[in-house]
Amino acid sequence: MVRRVYALYYWPGLPGRGEFVRLALEYAGVDYEDIALIDPEAVAYFLTDLEIKTPAFAPPYLRDGDIVIGQTALILHYLGPKLWLAPQDEAERLWLHQVQMTMGDFVGEVHDTHHPIGPELYYEDQKREAERRSASFREHRMPKYLGWFERVLRRNPHGPTFLVGDSLTYADLSLFHILAGLDYAFPRAFASLIGEYPCVQELGEYVADQPELSAYLESDRRLPFNETGIFRHYPELDD
Amino acid sequence: MVRRVYALYYWPGLPGRGEFVRLALEYAGVDYEDIALIDPEAVAYFLTDLEIKTPAFAPPYLRDGDIVIGQTALILHYLGPKLWLAPQDEAERLWLHQVQMTMGDFVGEVHDTHHPIGPELYYEDQKREAERRSASFREHRMPKYLGWFERVLRRNPHGPTFLVGDSLTYADLSLFHILAGLDYAFPRAFASLIGEYPCVQELGEYVADQPELSAYLESDRRLPFNETGIFRHYPELDD
Repeated sequence: MVRRVYALYYWPGLPGRGEFVRLALEYAGVDYEDIALIDPEAVAYFLTDLEIKTPAFAPPYLRDGDIVIGQTALILHYLGPKLWLAPQDEAERLWLHQVQMTMGDFVGEVHDTHHPIGPELYYEDQKREAERRSASFREHRMPKYLGWFERVLRRNPHGPTFLVGDSLTYADLSLFHILAGLDYAFPRAFASLIGEYPCVQELGEYVADQPELSAYLESDRRLPFNETGIFRHYPELDD
Repeated sequence: MVRRVYALYYWPGLPGRGEFVRLALEYAGVDYEDIALIDPEAVAYFLTDLEIKTPAFAPPYLRDGDIVIGQTALILHYLGPKLWLAPQDEAERLWLHQVQMTMGDFVGEVHDTHHPIGPELYYEDQKREAERRSASFREHRMPKYLGWFERVLRRNPHGPTFLVGDSLTYADLSLFHILAGLDYAFPRAFASLIGEYPCVQELGEYVADQPELSAYLESDRRLPFNETGIFRHYPELDD
C-alpha cells in the first residue's frame, strides 16, 4: 500500500491562513507536500484547473488523493481525526469545528485592519481607513474575541487546559498562532490586554512548549510574520 | 416519543444570518420555534447562560434538545441531512459545507460594505469609508463571488441545476436569499451584473418558484430586508 501524502496549497512567502493547517500537520509529524515550496505557480493554477470539481474560492486548500478541500476550518475538520487532533465524540467534534470557524472570522477581521476597503488595493491606499478600523479592532473586537476564547476554556467541562475536550486539538494550535500573530501585529495593544485572559495566555504558552512543535518552530519552515500576510505590523495601527 | 422541536435563536426584526437557517426549516416544513417571536430577550440572554457549555460567539444558534450549535454554515451542515437538504454522499456533504462557508464569507463582506470600520459604530459614522468599500465591493468582490457560484454550478458533475449534487440543498436556498439581498441592497450594480451569470440567475428563479417555499415567502414570517440587517439599501452605496 502506498502511503498517501497530503498536499497543502497556499501562497508562498507568508504564514497566512495556510499556517493553521501547517501547524496541525507539523504537530502530528505526518509527511506532507508544501506546494508553495515545490511549485509556487501551481497554487494559483490549481484554482483554474477545470478537472477540479470542487474549486475552492481561495487558498489554502488541501489535496488528499482525489479529495480537494478548501476553507481553513473545514480542512482542519477533515484532518483533525486523521491526525489525532480532534476528540472522538461527535458532538465535541462539531463544537471544535465551530470554535475554529469563529477563529476564522476573527482572522478575517485581523486582515481587514490593514485592508478595510478592499484586498485589491495596497495598504498605503487605505491607510487612513485602516487606522480607524484598527482603533475599533484594538478597543472592541480583540477583547471581544479574546474574552470569548477565555469563556470557551472556562466552560470546558474537562477543565480550562484545552479549548475542546481533554487533550490538545488543532484549535489549540490555531489559538497559539493567533496569539503569536496579535503579539507581532499589535504588540502594545496585545501586551496591555492579554493579562486579562489567563486561561488563553496559559494555553498559548503550553502549546509553544510542546516538544512536537519546537523543532518546527525553530526550523525555517516556520515562516516569519511579514507585511504581505494577515498579521502585519504597522506601528501606526497599534497606537 | 415526543417530537423534538428545533429552536432558532436570532435577533428580532431583521432577516440577517438567521434567514439562511429559517429558509431551510421553512422549505423542509418542519416545526421550529423562532425564539425572536416568542421571547426576544432570550436571544441575548442565551449568550450569557453559564449552563451552555458551547457558547456561540454570536447568533444565530440552534437548539436541538441538549445540542446548541452556532455558526450559520455549521447549523446548516448539522440540519442538512435531517431536513433532506444535503446529499447522501459524505464527500458531497463536505463540499456543500465548503460552499456554504464561502457564502458566509461573502455575507460578511456584504455586511462590511455599510460597516467597514466597526460594528459598534452607526452607519452614519462610517459613511465615507462605506462608500469607498462599496465601490470596491461592486467592482471586484460581487463579480468575484458571483463568478465563483457560476463556476461551482458549471462544474457540478450532475449538471448546473444545483450547486451541489442532483437535488436542491440548503446552499441553493441560501444562494436565492443572497441574490434577493443583493438585488435589494445594490439594485443598480446587481442588475448590470447578474446577466453574466446565467446558471446563478436560473437557480435563483428556480428556488423562488418552489411551492415548498412560496407560502413562506408570502407570509409575514418572511421578514423584509431593512436598514438594520446585513443587506441594506443606501442609494449612495450603489452609485
